[in-house]
Amino acid sequence: MEPLRFKLDSQDGEARAGIITTRRGQIETPVFMPVGTAGTVKGIRFEALESDLDAKIILGNTYHLWLRPGIDVIKSAGGLHRFIGWNRPLLTDSGGFQVFSLGALRKISEEGTEFRSHVDGSLRFLSPEVSMEVQASLGSDIVMVFDECAPGEASHEETERSLNLTARWAQRSKIAFERLQTGGADTGRLEVEGLSGTQALFGIIQGAGHLDLRQSSLEQTVNIGFDGYAIGGLSVGEEKSLMFEVVDEIAPRMPKDCPRYLMGVGTPEDLVEAVARGVDMFDCVLPTRNGRTGQAFTSTGKLNIKNAQWTNDSRPLDESCRCSVCRRHSRAYLRHLYMSGEMLASILLTHHNLAFFLDTMRGVRQSIRSGDFPKFRREFTGRLDANGE
Amino acid sequence: MEPLRFKLDSQDGEARAGIITTRRGQIETPVFMPVGTAGTVKGIRFEALESDLDAKIILGNTYHLWLRPGIDVIKSAGGLHRFIGWNRPLLTDSGGFQVFSLGALRKISEEGTEFRSHVDGSLRFLSPEVSMEVQASLGSDIVMVFDECAPGEASHEETERSLNLTARWAQRSKIAFERLQTGGADTGRLEVEGLSGTQALFGIIQGAGHLDLRQSSLEQTVNIGFDGYAIGGLSVGEEKSLMFEVVDEIAPRMPKDCPRYLMGVGTPEDLVEAVARGVDMFDCVLPTRNGRTGQAFTSTGKLNIKNAQWTNDSRPLDESCRCSVCRRHSRAYLRHLYMSGEMLASILLTHHNLAFFLDTMRGVRQSIRSGDFPKFRREFTGRLDANGE
Repeated sequence: MEPLRFKLDSQDGEARAGIITTRRGQIETPVFMPVGTAGTVKGIRFEALESDLDAKIILGNTYHLWLRPGIDVIKSAGGLHRFIGWNRPLLTDSGGFQVFSLGALRKISEEGTEFRSHVDGSLRFLSPEVSMEVQASLGSDIVMVFDECAPGEASHEETERSLNLTARWAQRSKIAFERLQTGGADTGRLEVEGLSGTQALFGIIQGAGHLDLRQSSLEQTVNIGFDGYAIGGLSVGEEKSLMFEVVDEIAPRMPKDCPRYLMGVGTPEDLVEAVARGVDMFDCVLPTRNGRTGQAFTSTGKLNIKNAQWTNDSRPLDESCRCSVCRRHSRAYLRHLYMSGEMLASILLTHHNLAFFLDTMRGVRQSIRSGDFPKFRREFTGRLDANGE
Repeated sequence: MEPLRFKLDSQDGEARAGIITTRRGQIETPVFMPVGTAGTVKGIRFEALESDLDAKIILGNTYHLWLRPGIDVIKSAGGLHRFIGWNRPLLTDSGGFQVFSLGALRKISEEGTEFRSHVDGSLRFLSPEVSMEVQASLGSDIVMVFDECAPGEASHEETERSLNLTARWAQRSKIAFERLQTGGADTGRLEVEGLSGTQALFGIIQGAGHLDLRQSSLEQTVNIGFDGYAIGGLSVGEEKSLMFEVVDEIAPRMPKDCPRYLMGVGTPEDLVEAVARGVDMFDCVLPTRNGRTGQAFTSTGKLNIKNAQWTNDSRPLDESCRCSVCRRHSRAYLRHLYMSGEMLASILLTHHNLAFFLDTMRGVRQSIRSGDFPKFRREFTGRLDANGE
């Protein structure tokens, strides 16, 4: 049986709703994936992710887990799922983006990338082969190819060089990936009964803001052939209009019968806008990271819990939200927790933010299935301005 | 109807099991009360306290809440229960102990205590009358008298002076308390339907390590007359043997038909030992505070999650524990979270520690009811040495 299947069941304009069947269960799309960098979605328990929030898939970060606790520890636990105690699908990134984010601390060659660990300063080397090996050891259900991510402002020449390297690395990733699958290196398969397939491998389209290069990267990536395709290198500091130009141009040209994943995006509005352009999958640290710094995402826009105006406000964060935080706690209480430096502020804001992102995607899916997506999109976007923040 | 009733239903030696009926529901004793200093039991959601842990009562701190967010905010929310979203019984301390902990920053007179706020440096004044007023505004179910807590090493003379002041403050506390109850100042009664009684008021027995003074304090406090009685001023740095000398001497002499509360105590072993001496109620920050610094309490003793020996250990924190953390997560994972500075480490260790304290008390209650408390005590204490920490 194949590692992953994608079945489109509705389309409304370019917006698509469907089901990804992974070896560990089904995921309805469009889907938002909470980010679990170091083997934890920061500030929330897995029980809440499962029951209250019903997140169907979360992310893990190859770079972080490779450096700490290290692959031996995770392998000895029987893979990432068993190590962290999460039995639903996991997608792992390749480490490419994190290494790119290290800036001057890395050195890129044809072979791969040399960099210094942020944990202990040790010299490390990451390549397509190493990344595939690490991700096989993690036993994630969806593996990402090892790519180079050019800066948003990179020149045409620089971007072209970079995406051609990414294409060669994609090819090497696929070869290494297949060798590892055949060789039984996938910890998921090794240790767990009843998985229906091997790991799945997604390719990544690069090309910064150059549409012709994005097109070329798309062709090269599709020619190699993957289980799904991602648009990488966006949401890295470029103008939002440029991001949507790229998504406008590329998403509808991506293979229709495979999941389309827009990496690292974005705000609730970004998600809805990208869905309108045919994207199926998203991940972003915004709900968790901003939750920890006191920012709530609500149906009427962003809300900064630090503001003195909430001191005596008995309303929930979002009056239209039915998450366990909004059902129980007031803005006044959440502000008090935040101002007092209480951990519970982060816990509750993180929970609400994830609930809002995941509920938004539920609304998106329903509206696509009922043919009301344009209306949903219009109303959702209209409401977001109400807070004026 | 009276504010609080206590019904003893079993006795095994000095150990007692019973039921406290507060105006917001029943509490089986002996009971451990998690500490919710600033209106949150640090690192845990109320949902978990209710369902997973089934904590029947938690503490709030007058001193902290008075300074931040301030009583106006809590009053405007309709009391502390409504402000924080907790509908079970709440006990509030009087602020006496926190002011005592400020050391040189406070100035004590017959009238009360002047001190500087740790939040904004402002000059504040706390007295029996102010403390009762604040606790009426909080609308807690059990109110503590405002006391002076002498240092553990205080001389006989100094301690005597202090406990006589405490007795006068206890009398003033009671007068102010009754005036406030009659005057309808209790926010709990004011705002909430269906409460069966007024707030309850507990007296506090002081006297440091001087048994004759403890005895005198007990007599003076009982003469004033309260709904329950606490032993204060222990677990403040004195030798453990001295603490148990005091509890040995005082607890069995406290009124049999009222709850006996040992304030700020202690380790799981301390709880069991104090129960053996006739104590009914406990509070302590150990499970939450030590959880945040990586220490787990288990049935085989303390476990420091930082230790390298847990790097690959797939066992739960406590193999005899059935809490949601022990059912799901390994020592290896918890160590990884802690070493990575992940908030989830604090969340999970706090949860387990509270589960262990509350389960211990469940075991204590059952064993008293079945007449097996001496066996429970022997086996529990024997197992605690297994980890050798």
